[in-house]
Amino acid sequence: MIVALAGGVGGAKLARGLAQIAGADLSVIVNTGDDFDHFDLRICPDVDTVTYTLAGKANPVTGWGLEGETWSFMAQTKALGGEDWFQLGDRDLATHVLRSQWLRRGESLTQVTGKIAAALGVKAAVLPMSDAPVRTRVQTASGVLDFQDYFVRLKCDVPITGLRFDGAADAEPTEAVEHALDAAELVIFCPSNPFVSIDPILAITGIHRRLKATRVARVAVSPIIGGKAVKGPAAKMMAELGYHVSSLAVAEKYCGLIDGIVIDMADADLAEDIRALGMAVKTTQTLMLNAADSARLAAETVEFARELRCG
Amino acid sequence: MIVALAGGVGGAKLARGLAQIAGADLSVIVNTGDDFDHFDLRICPDVDTVTYTLAGKANPVTGWGLEGETWSFMAQTKALGGEDWFQLGDRDLATHVLRSQWLRRGESLTQVTGKIAAALGVKAAVLPMSDAPVRTRVQTASGVLDFQDYFVRLKCDVPITGLRFDGAADAEPTEAVEHALDAAELVIFCPSNPFVSIDPILAITGIHRRLKATRVARVAVSPIIGGKAVKGPAAKMMAELGYHVSSLAVAEKYCGLIDGIVIDMADADLAEDIRALGMAVKTTQTLMLNAADSARLAAETVEFARELRCG
Repeated sequence: MIVALAGGVGGAKLARGLAQIAGADLSVIVNTGDDFDHFDLRICPDVDTVTYTLAGKANPVTGWGLEGETWSFMAQTKALGGEDWFQLGDRDLATHVLRSQWLRRGESLTQVTGKIAAALGVKAAVLPMSDAPVRTRVQTASGVLDFQDYFVRLKCDVPITGLRFDGAADAEPTEAVEHALDAAELVIFCPSNPFVSIDPILAITGIHRRLKATRVARVAVSPIIGGKAVKGPAAKMMAELGYHVSSLAVAEKYCGLIDGIVIDMADADLAEDIRALGMAVKTTQTLMLNAADSARLAAETVEFARELRCG
Repeated sequence: MIVALAGGVGGAKLARGLAQIAGADLSVIVNTGDDFDHFDLRICPDVDTVTYTLAGKANPVTGWGLEGETWSFMAQTKALGGEDWFQLGDRDLATHVLRSQWLRRGESLTQVTGKIAAALGVKAAVLPMSDAPVRTRVQTASGVLDFQDYFVRLKCDVPITGLRFDGAADAEPTEAVEHALDAAELVIFCPSNPFVSIDPILAITGIHRRLKATRVARVAVSPIIGGKAVKGPAAKMMAELGYHVSSLAVAEKYCGLIDGIVIDMADADLAEDIRALGMAVKTTQTLMLNAADSARLAAETVEFARELRCG
């Protein structure tokens, strides 16, 4: 049983590679800190990105949403004077409408996510980190912003001073998450944004404690290549929060929670400093441009982790 | 000021013709007995048909929904195991999502309908008969059905024994409806289904009383031509409820509430019997196959009503 921690696009890509190795023996614990209500619908961007990517139905151009998408709903919403800052495709909308309906009827986010993933043919378990609401808030000099306000509406175009995860202190991991972590043979921190994708997961005490205490190998794949993030605001956030933008900083951030880290060959010069933190390092090509890249990186990461476990 | 009472397709077609005559001086009081909640969205079929038709954006093929519609949401909903017996187009969905959101925020159905109609360029006032819920229920030998269950899911394929309009006894007309009726120079009963489109409107005491007491001319356009309904189950319902399927039966049904009725020339032989009920009769082509038909029938109906008022 492989357990992966993931947020959006980068995490989903590695998860897809892991699913090729592990099939139904993969559980992906997914960040729900980005979740929000829009048009009275529950939107779960990271859960959906992971689900759609594992289903092989993700939109390869946008990095979010479904392939073959149409946009009639958004066009008409705009015509009617509704909010159009958050793009919802017509197919994607079915996910949000059904999820919202099922949640209102009393099903848990875990149950609903499982139904949607199964309907899309996903064999791996897509596990929201918690069924309780955790909401990422972005602290700035001029106040606290909801995550999607910052991420989508403002396109991250405001310096951040910190992040908080409202509700995380009271949020329990789900039983499915606990069972997955208890049954894990190895744990992989996907190359997702450490601050807004992985940190919300780690902010849940029951998850953090299990990750800290587990005796199985825990390996991260760094989302930083040559001082830059492949996608999204990870590098910008690191800089604004006072970190060096590098895989060394990622390793330092996860120190005590991981036994090894996979970094890009472009950052091979950092390996020695990272090893000095007391963790193993593997250097390879971490950029995933296609499914073959995902499969190869996943295989190398699993092999690296298995060697650590035997060591 | 012209006031029209309308349900779905046939009523909307005449309303469009009336709008060409009266512009903003037309108020259409629309049946809300068909309204229901689906996917936790408020669906108002007749209000939307009237609005879309007045906007010139109705789907000419289906008779409901918007022209140029796409169906990605429905396809994906089906793929995810959601209910697919009620068709919701992607553009149309924007209406339902925004209406539901605005209603939950405390706006009235009248306000929401006005916003949507205005955004679509409708100059006439589209007035839900009430802001309070009235729900048409269909009585059958094997029990009572929700209207959309009967109408869409079962395709009317079960004999009815009666109809009731839950909530109508407690429903007040809106202020907008009261003002429209008080300011009306003439009232037109559109060629909508008398049992499930017009009757729910008449079931609201405050509307029925005003229609009964008004001194302005009240004219109906019969939805029956040569013993058949142009569209929908009106003829089938009439027969099952023990009426003769004819414009005479329509006239009898509205007796005491109308001063005249427009019937199709195919039914000219009924004119004498209808006049014997104490109302005026105008015979013309009532079938509306296009916008020109609607405009002509509307003009003839208004002229007929104006003559009655002067008589």
